[in-house]
Amino acid sequence: MVKHVVRSQMFTPELLSALFKRADVFREVVDKGQKLDLLTVLAGLGMIYMFWEPSTRTRLSYVRAAHLLGMSVEGSENAGEFSSTIKGETLEDTIKVISSYVPDVIVMRHKQDGAAERAAQVSRVPIINAGDGRGQHPTQALLDVYTIQRELGQLGGLVVVIGGDLKRGRTVRSLAYLLGKYPGNHIIFLSPPQLRVGDDIKEYLAEKGTTFEESGDVEGSLRRSHVVYWTRVQTERKVDGEEPVPQNIAEQFIISAKQMSWMPKWSVLMHPLPRVNEIKVEVDADSRAAYFRQAENGLYVRMALLEWVTKS
Amino acid sequence: MVKHVVRSQMFTPELLSALFKRADVFREVVDKGQKLDLLTVLAGLGMIYMFWEPSTRTRLSYVRAAHLLGMSVEGSENAGEFSSTIKGETLEDTIKVISSYVPDVIVMRHKQDGAAERAAQVSRVPIINAGDGRGQHPTQALLDVYTIQRELGQLGGLVVVIGGDLKRGRTVRSLAYLLGKYPGNHIIFLSPPQLRVGDDIKEYLAEKGTTFEESGDVEGSLRRSHVVYWTRVQTERKVDGEEPVPQNIAEQFIISAKQMSWMPKWSVLMHPLPRVNEIKVEVDADSRAAYFRQAENGLYVRMALLEWVTKS
Amino acid sequence: MVKHVVRSQMFTPELLSALFKRADVFREVVDKGQKLDLLTVLAGLGMIYMFWEPSTRTRLSYVRAAHLLGMSVEGSENAGEFSSTIKGETLEDTIKVISSYVPDVIVMRHKQDGAAERAAQVSRVPIINAGDGRGQHPTQALLDVYTIQRELGQLGGLVVVIGGDLKRGRTVRSLAYLLGKYPGNHIIFLSPPQLRVGDDIKEYLAEKGTTFEESGDVEGSLRRSHVVYWTRVQTERKVDGEEPVPQNIAEQFIISAKQMSWMPKWSVLMHPLPRVNEIKVEVDADSRAAYFRQAENGLYVRMALLEWVTKS
Repeated sequence: MVKHVVRSQMFTPELLSALFKRADVFREVVDKGQKLDLLTVLAGLGMIYMFWEPSTRTRLSYVRAAHLLGMSVEGSENAGEFSSTIKGETLEDTIKVISSYVPDVIVMRHKQDGAAERAAQVSRVPIINAGDGRGQHPTQALLDVYTIQRELGQLGGLVVVIGGDLKRGRTVRSLAYLLGKYPGNHIIFLSPPQLRVGDDIKEYLAEKGTTFEESGDVEGSLRRSHVVYWTRVQTERKVDGEEPVPQNIAEQFIISAKQMSWMPKWSVLMHPLPRVNEIKVEVDADSRAAYFRQAENGLYVRMALLEWVTKS
Repeated sequence: MVKHVVRSQMFTPELLSALFKRADVFREVVDKGQKLDLLTVLAGLGMIYMFWEPSTRTRLSYVRAAHLLGMSVEGSENAGEFSSTIKGETLEDTIKVISSYVPDVIVMRHKQDGAAERAAQVSRVPIINAGDGRGQHPTQALLDVYTIQRELGQLGGLVVVIGGDLKRGRTVRSLAYLLGKYPGNHIIFLSPPQLRVGDDIKEYLAEKGTTFEESGDVEGSLRRSHVVYWTRVQTERKVDGEEPVPQNIAEQFIISAKQMSWMPKWSVLMHPLPRVNEIKVEVDADSRAAYFRQAENGLYVRMALLEWVTKS
Repeated sequence: MVKHVVRSQMFTPELLSALFKRADVFREVVDKGQKLDLLTVLAGLGMIYMFWEPSTRTRLSYVRAAHLLGMSVEGSENAGEFSSTIKGETLEDTIKVISSYVPDVIVMRHKQDGAAERAAQVSRVPIINAGDGRGQHPTQALLDVYTIQRELGQLGGLVVVIGGDLKRGRTVRSLAYLLGKYPGNHIIFLSPPQLRVGDDIKEYLAEKGTTFEESGDVEGSLRRSHVVYWTRVQTERKVDGEEPVPQNIAEQFIISAKQMSWMPKWSVLMHPLPRVNEIKVEVDADSRAAYFRQAENGLYVRMALLEWVTKS
């Protein structure tokens, strides 16, 4: 059976644990300077990436992961502008043609919700969803959870503050889904009132028995946290006819040394990157600032995922 | 001597037969799951692609073919926008520089008729023409003929309906040239009166002794066909000051289940893809619909071609 | 210690000599048709390129160099348009993330002066500067000097005419720096009065004891030359509020057969390419026209450089 990675709901704690173990192994080999040994892991296999929405960072992470394992890679980083899409070809047709080039996995990113699911229905080879619309971004969630595991040593019993723009971020959505799979987590959704998290996530968490609260109190939330997962609150942009967030509220959602002083010693600050000014550069030197380690973790987790989907 | 692939006229039936045999071999190795064995075929060799006109599909097919055979690949998928072309460099200079990077083959696509021929005159390494202007697209013709061979088991004695927009398609032009090399073929050029095939092709076929007719009767043509090669008739676009095709005529050039019922059991429906609505999705399930198999055939034929131009 | 290649000042004559020897070795292997042997030189290592300013030619030369040595390569050829840069990410953050993907070298090109220096300060892996702003282009200078060495057999005691637009070209700047490292060179800066070389370069040469003069006399300069390094004088463009160069002056800065007749037999004509009309095509056949050989030299010098930065 072809293994697709379309939604973060598919990851069981057992599967996550197995993937994280392989990620650790790959990291160790790299750290020892033995990259040459990795080239045989997936030698002869090939990845094609199709990004209808550009994302240099995510794309490079996948391509690098594939290359480290010895795969060949080709693809389009701006499929929406260059490819047959302009001529009116359907997503289904494109995927059928691409999968006829006998790749061993297709990694795709798309602007439309549910695009990866549609692709999976017609593809002969595994589809990995690297983000579709406002929907899912399961591999980002995977590396986020892997980072929590590595930084704190456990995935349950945590107070996780998810802060910033909770209305739009697909990152936030996929992460909340995964956290709901572990017992004892409590999520604090910390946002301006204009940018609250969607009802579907709250319903999902209620169903899973994961407690959560919504808050606008930055200091109170940070003081109770094990994990602070931060995203950007924008003031300049008015989306979908909503009211923009007032400047004075938005400023509360910036992390500087002062906000770090509210966080416990054992806690960790994460961010999906890129960041603009929502975390000040002065914070980078704090050992609890985990966002660059988080980016690196993405590489190893993607290596594990590529191996999992292509090997039985 | 350097082997260039610039025009479809260069392919003799003997060469085509040899290439198709190699394509079959490559397919078999892939189907058996032994891709790893292919990596040594062209290991150490390199391909550079230069696409002055973007074409994700064609480009990916070539890069995938090269990677499967163990070649390294680099290139530009939008050479017209990014490269020295903007600064006013001639095609000849660009090709001289690119060929000084010691690739073993250059695959190029260009907007201007005859660009590949000009490139071949200054290149130290083989040039493969992946389409130039309204001129030639010899590798598309190659995979079309390979598909007919695989689907019907013979390349002569066929009634081939080439339907749709015959005025512009370089695909149609190159295919007609190749069909003229086999005895007993009869071509029906089926198009609206506004989009008839050019005189140069008709003169070439007359010279080769290949019979042909021009028709506007879809049902009558399809009922007599062994091969139906379909392309899109556009109504919205007025090109070169021509009259646009009226809506009621254009609608006759759409293939649905009804049109398929006119085609004989043993016939085959082909299309260079992408398709928009000129072949309805309902047709895909019909075993005579060969267009996705045709795309896959392109991969294997390109592998055979890369081997042929780079090995003596 | 991580070896960065940021400014041409870093190259000592000893280092240049060592690099040129390796470049010669790589060329010899390629010329013998033994590319396969090169694949093991840097097998298992990886290069990431980040071009905030597109340059198909330079990028292809680097990627080809890396591939020939067995490296894997990925990157972005239009990082300014596609990547997180648009979202407001700093260069430093981008480099930190990219270097966390454990490449063995990052090759970058940027629009801003000093960008490569900034990148080197935060990168865990070697940075190679493939051009930043109006500042430096050290690898172009490297291949220019390598070309002089190969064409004339020595790097000191030469009269080098650097002609054309000396105000903007970063190529010119980096080359002058390197020439100042060898004894006995005399540089003639030949340009229209509007496009004279910057004071910083003149001060540097004075400090190094390299004699130079500024001239507007094309014939007189060419008659005394060992090396003529040519760049384009544009008339149509008015930059930074300067006066454009008058047509009759600009025409004096075009090399045709007549200008070649002024150059000594043993001299050599170089150009960083692309050229437009500042060197006529009729000149290409002259054995002293070295610009296409110069482009090829770039490949081998980059191979040597990649090996040097990634191996201890």
